[in-house]
Amino acid sequence: MLESIAAVHCLLNPKSIAVVGASGDFSRFTGRTLKYLLKHGYAGKIYPVNPKYKELAGLPCYPGISELPEAIDIAFIQIPSAAVVEAIKECIGRGVRTAIIHTAGLGESGEKGKERQKEIKRLAEESGMRICGPNSAGIVNVIGKVALTPVVALELDELTPGKIGLVSQSGGMTGAFLTRAEGRKIGFSSIISTGNEMDLEASDYIEFFLEEPQTKVIAVFLEGFRNIPRFLQVADLALEKGKPIVVLKIGRTEVGAKAAASHTGALTGSDEVYNAVFKQKGITRVYAQEDLIEVAALFSKSPPPKGRRIGIVTTTGGGAMHLADECAFWGMEFPSPSPETIAEASRGLPTFASLSNPLDVTMSGVGGGYRQSLDLFLKDENFDLVVAVVGTSSQFEPEMGVKPILERDKSFSRPFAAFLNPDAQVALRLLEENCVPTFKTPEGCARALRHFIDRGDFLEKVAIRKAVASLPLFIDREKVRILLSGKRGTLNEHEAKALLREYGVPTVREMIAQDVGQAVAMAGEIGYPVALKILSPQIRHKTEAGAVRLNLRSPEEVTAAYAEVRQNAKGYNSQAEIQGVLVQEMIREGIEVIVGISRDSQFGPVVLFGLGGIFVELFHDVALRLAPVNDAEARDMIEEIKGSRLLKGFRGKPAADVEAIVDVITRVSQLAVDLRDRVLELDINPLIVCEKGKGVRAVDALVVME
Amino acid sequence: MLESIAAVHCLLNPKSIAVVGASGDFSRFTGRTLKYLLKHGYAGKIYPVNPKYKELAGLPCYPGISELPEAIDIAFIQIPSAAVVEAIKECIGRGVRTAIIHTAGLGESGEKGKERQKEIKRLAEESGMRICGPNSAGIVNVIGKVALTPVVALELDELTPGKIGLVSQSGGMTGAFLTRAEGRKIGFSSIISTGNEMDLEASDYIEFFLEEPQTKVIAVFLEGFRNIPRFLQVADLALEKGKPIVVLKIGRTEVGAKAAASHTGALTGSDEVYNAVFKQKGITRVYAQEDLIEVAALFSKSPPPKGRRIGIVTTTGGGAMHLADECAFWGMEFPSPSPETIAEASRGLPTFASLSNPLDVTMSGVGGGYRQSLDLFLKDENFDLVVAVVGTSSQFEPEMGVKPILERDKSFSRPFAAFLNPDAQVALRLLEENCVPTFKTPEGCARALRHFIDRGDFLEKVAIRKAVASLPLFIDREKVRILLSGKRGTLNEHEAKALLREYGVPTVREMIAQDVGQAVAMAGEIGYPVALKILSPQIRHKTEAGAVRLNLRSPEEVTAAYAEVRQNAKGYNSQAEIQGVLVQEMIREGIEVIVGISRDSQFGPVVLFGLGGIFVELFHDVALRLAPVNDAEARDMIEEIKGSRLLKGFRGKPAADVEAIVDVITRVSQLAVDLRDRVLELDINPLIVCEKGKGVRAVDALVVME
Repeated sequence: MLESIAAVHCLLNPKSIAVVGASGDFSRFTGRTLKYLLKHGYAGKIYPVNPKYKELAGLPCYPGISELPEAIDIAFIQIPSAAVVEAIKECIGRGVRTAIIHTAGLGESGEKGKERQKEIKRLAEESGMRICGPNSAGIVNVIGKVALTPVVALELDELTPGKIGLVSQSGGMTGAFLTRAEGRKIGFSSIISTGNEMDLEASDYIEFFLEEPQTKVIAVFLEGFRNIPRFLQVADLALEKGKPIVVLKIGRTEVGAKAAASHTGALTGSDEVYNAVFKQKGITRVYAQEDLIEVAALFSKSPPPKGRRIGIVTTTGGGAMHLADECAFWGMEFPSPSPETIAEASRGLPTFASLSNPLDVTMSGVGGGYRQSLDLFLKDENFDLVVAVVGTSSQFEPEMGVKPILERDKSFSRPFAAFLNPDAQVALRLLEENCVPTFKTPEGCARALRHFIDRGDFLEKVAIRKAVASLPLFIDREKVRILLSGKRGTLNEHEAKALLREYGVPTVREMIAQDVGQAVAMAGEIGYPVALKILSPQIRHKTEAGAVRLNLRSPEEVTAAYAEVRQNAKGYNSQAEIQGVLVQEMIREGIEVIVGISRDSQFGPVVLFGLGGIFVELFHDVALRLAPVNDAEARDMIEEIKGSRLLKGFRGKPAADVEAIVDVITRVSQLAVDLRDRVLELDINPLIVCEKGKGVRAVDALVVME
Repeated sequence: MLESIAAVHCLLNPKSIAVVGASGDFSRFTGRTLKYLLKHGYAGKIYPVNPKYKELAGLPCYPGISELPEAIDIAFIQIPSAAVVEAIKECIGRGVRTAIIHTAGLGESGEKGKERQKEIKRLAEESGMRICGPNSAGIVNVIGKVALTPVVALELDELTPGKIGLVSQSGGMTGAFLTRAEGRKIGFSSIISTGNEMDLEASDYIEFFLEEPQTKVIAVFLEGFRNIPRFLQVADLALEKGKPIVVLKIGRTEVGAKAAASHTGALTGSDEVYNAVFKQKGITRVYAQEDLIEVAALFSKSPPPKGRRIGIVTTTGGGAMHLADECAFWGMEFPSPSPETIAEASRGLPTFASLSNPLDVTMSGVGGGYRQSLDLFLKDENFDLVVAVVGTSSQFEPEMGVKPILERDKSFSRPFAAFLNPDAQVALRLLEENCVPTFKTPEGCARALRHFIDRGDFLEKVAIRKAVASLPLFIDREKVRILLSGKRGTLNEHEAKALLREYGVPTVREMIAQDVGQAVAMAGEIGYPVALKILSPQIRHKTEAGAVRLNLRSPEEVTAAYAEVRQNAKGYNSQAEIQGVLVQEMIREGIEVIVGISRDSQFGPVVLFGLGGIFVELFHDVALRLAPVNDAEARDMIEEIKGSRLLKGFRGKPAADVEAIVDVITRVSQLAVDLRDRVLELDINPLIVCEKGKGVRAVDALVVME
């Protein structure tokens, strides 16, 4: 069987192609595939296959696949779904290396279609033939001039070769991206429509682009990855290779996910978990179509900036103000230019120019002040990146508006971009052709620059993380095994905490009392005040059940509380097995947080962090990561939540022990990995965080075993 | 003096124009004004003024303004800033009705410029001549063919007349909006660049458009309104007229606001207060340039939808999925089509079409199934609005892709829009010319539809509010006067609550003790448990000072606490005047919220609502409105905060008394209005909200008087 990389290479660089179901009517999709292969200069052999024709577009036409004169590289199949199984058999018989199945109505619709797809899959696996699709719109190798697709976007007379490899689960979107990018001369290396991904899947194509030297950035439009371990492997490879992946993933809402499921039958995983994984793997996620193109193009042109200090030079006040507003909204900083820059710039500009940042040279600057100011900003160490803004002149006198940008001093490596305020197609192209990342809207420009900065931050962090690896955790796995032996369903609170202690998570002191005398004695040993809680796996919501009493300060209070919690527990659930009453240490001061594990059906164990109380439920202010989570990632999680300020000494309170939380998150993530087949859910709620240096304590814990 | 409406009418419909500083070099802005007047068919009289020429563009040129042969409608002034004062004097002498000052470097830069602008203002006020600018890029009356501007966008050969009136504080942006809109045949009625707004200001131009029948929607790009009472008056007029205003206001960040201030010298008010006012007045706020155009165009074509149930018919899966995802993200609902729709649609479509919502007819539907499905969706009562999505065919075979949309059954009044997935300029124009609101991106389409739905909601609410007016509040203003007589600075807590009680805000029971015996006696009268608090205007943060004791359950605890709070207060601030110790009723159960007043430097008193505790500071989860606030607006405020779920019976708790909060907000807003000149700040923090029917109590209050 062809390895996937070799198979994708074959799909993108075929020496021979059979178009099965080709027709002579170039207005139909069965005709267009042939038309576009010829139109865009495919240099290999083309074999149309259709019993109805003797010749098509000047080429001899073959009645069937079996009659092909050689064992070819690709069979492009566009025949009715009922006939595809037979065609695949013939392909296998004739030694065809790969097939692109364009036909729809297989795995993505109806029982009959699904059965047929299953049969094709079986045949392919047996024979080793690799398949793209079904329901694939085809592939375009722009650099190698292979346009094997009936997508109408290929009516374009010219395709700009470029550095972006595009992988799309939607065929229609390949056309949209191609035309939107071509309109401004942003080029692709190759474009692949993956379809139902019966065999080759998005990750395979991405992996190919990671290895392929002409592709510098990979742009992906998708609904979800089919094989998550495979995707994670490819994501790690991307990190290793340092090649950016930019993803537009739909299905962030349930409606979108449902639409996605009905479209190509993808099982869309939880969108929030995708988000977490993208962050962990340094994959850039965008939400707009133009962003996918613009961000990929931006990333392909230079390494990311070293910081978020931006300098803007403009000929138009309004456009620059809008851009500045958007950039500030996305967290960029606007330092003043250095005194030297201001002094030098003022010489070349009219008195009414605004000598700050943004630097507004006004229209009159187009003469010479604009270029000079750009050079000064590019040289100025106060800035990490520089943006040139051009007004209406870029539309009607593109040479004039764009010239100063093209003539700028290129000896500085500072990342640079341009934003064109009007609808200025020609200028967009001119700049793109001269390798200047250029933007059509202030908001798109600001978002892209923010992604660029985030990419820089991420790469820097990865470098640091490599240097400072997390310490290994020593877990007595045999003790854990014994502890969990035979356990299923919900552990009681005491067992749950025992498990946490084995993983080094600090818990409050507690003992199990079987009668009131024990309870009072234990309270004395632990030290007042104490808490009393019913111990029963069947009573998960102890507070609701009235089976918790806090802040008990004396033997009398403990005695009264003991009776109450037992009685209330009985009243709440008379069937519940009462295993005793927990007598617990009270932690007086601290901030409540939650650390938890849940198991995603696709990604496996996911670690959650959030503030305790109602913050998680009401504001959904949580951070997720795939387990295992290292120290640096745990710190990212804590930084990520909106409420993280609370931990840093909010309103004059002392800062909380954040490093102790980091420790708990990494330990819990190790537990998640070790026990991935057994633990379904885990919640430490609350984990009380004391002030810096004083650690954390798990006060309550819930563990659900499979 | 010309009334502002008459002045704007004169600016947009001049019978005669002098171009002061005109030149014969059409590549310079002094030449372009003349060029564009002629090019775009201005039919009135044109008088170039420049002592250097005898003739310009075939027109006799006048050496000075005084030499003009008649008293003209507009002098368009583009001469160096040093010469403008003199030119204005001459205009006044010659009886010129209005002037547009294009010259920059006046009010927006430097002391000298500011002085000159002041002098011009004085001259204009004395004489009654009205002025647009300085630093205005001019005006374009598209319908009336008056293009009086040197903005290069007028190089466009044709301008599409339309229903949108555009007001922009940035001259450069008029060019950007004009070209972006023209590229897709979205037309304007008139375009006005307001510049420094020395005399006529954005509100005046908006008011004109409200009265002008050819303008159906007003689009505004601005940094801020100069005269807030005037803006509020115009906003109310817009509501009365039912004409939508769509605003792109920059300066939402401090950087943007700073850039704005340096640009045209506008004083940008607090962006959050603007947001509140826009909500209150039904003004639609957008953040992207394309959104300003697309939303205004959408609003100009039909009344808003009655709800948020959207139906999508598409020829392309990917694009529709992306749109559905965005729409769901913006809160729209996707009901299934009715059984009749499904039954009928299935007849005309291939078996692999997806018969749900979005309804994917696939490319093959372009034949006939697409149009038929559109008609079925437009007829289906399950939808409030319908969107047609078109794939790549709309770009390369626009007639084919667009025809089914144009041929749809137009007898249904349901709002309708189209989204084109590729870069399809010709199709965009075709649809716009046939009055179909059309979108270029899924995210832009979704945002615009959400604005449309919000507009419908708002208009419905306004109608209800008119029917159900708030009850008048009876306040004993004489008692309030006496209470506040001579007060300045911070009121003590007891005085603050007395003021609130006069406005009908319920407070906890409390008395002032001057010795420990009184404190114990008062506690007995109020009933245990009680709270003790120091009473001192100098100690605002009583908890920080350790000068609060809660939950005191016995005379002994009160006795001990009395000594503690006095001692701690002394220790915290030995200079503080101790006016006694408050003995207060404790409210056992309830949710803490905040109601407050602050005074915005431009808008005056603003009312704030939020959850108590750390929510306001940490999550900034607050709602603002200008005072006065009526019942319906108060309910909106409560709905608006993210934490509002907490008030509705969160996690099995009883629902809180929301109507009692509504009552407090309206009463506090009345206080804000009555005492706008005296109260600088007011905070009820916390206001404790009991369960439904049990009311609220102000537990602590802070009032700062001017």
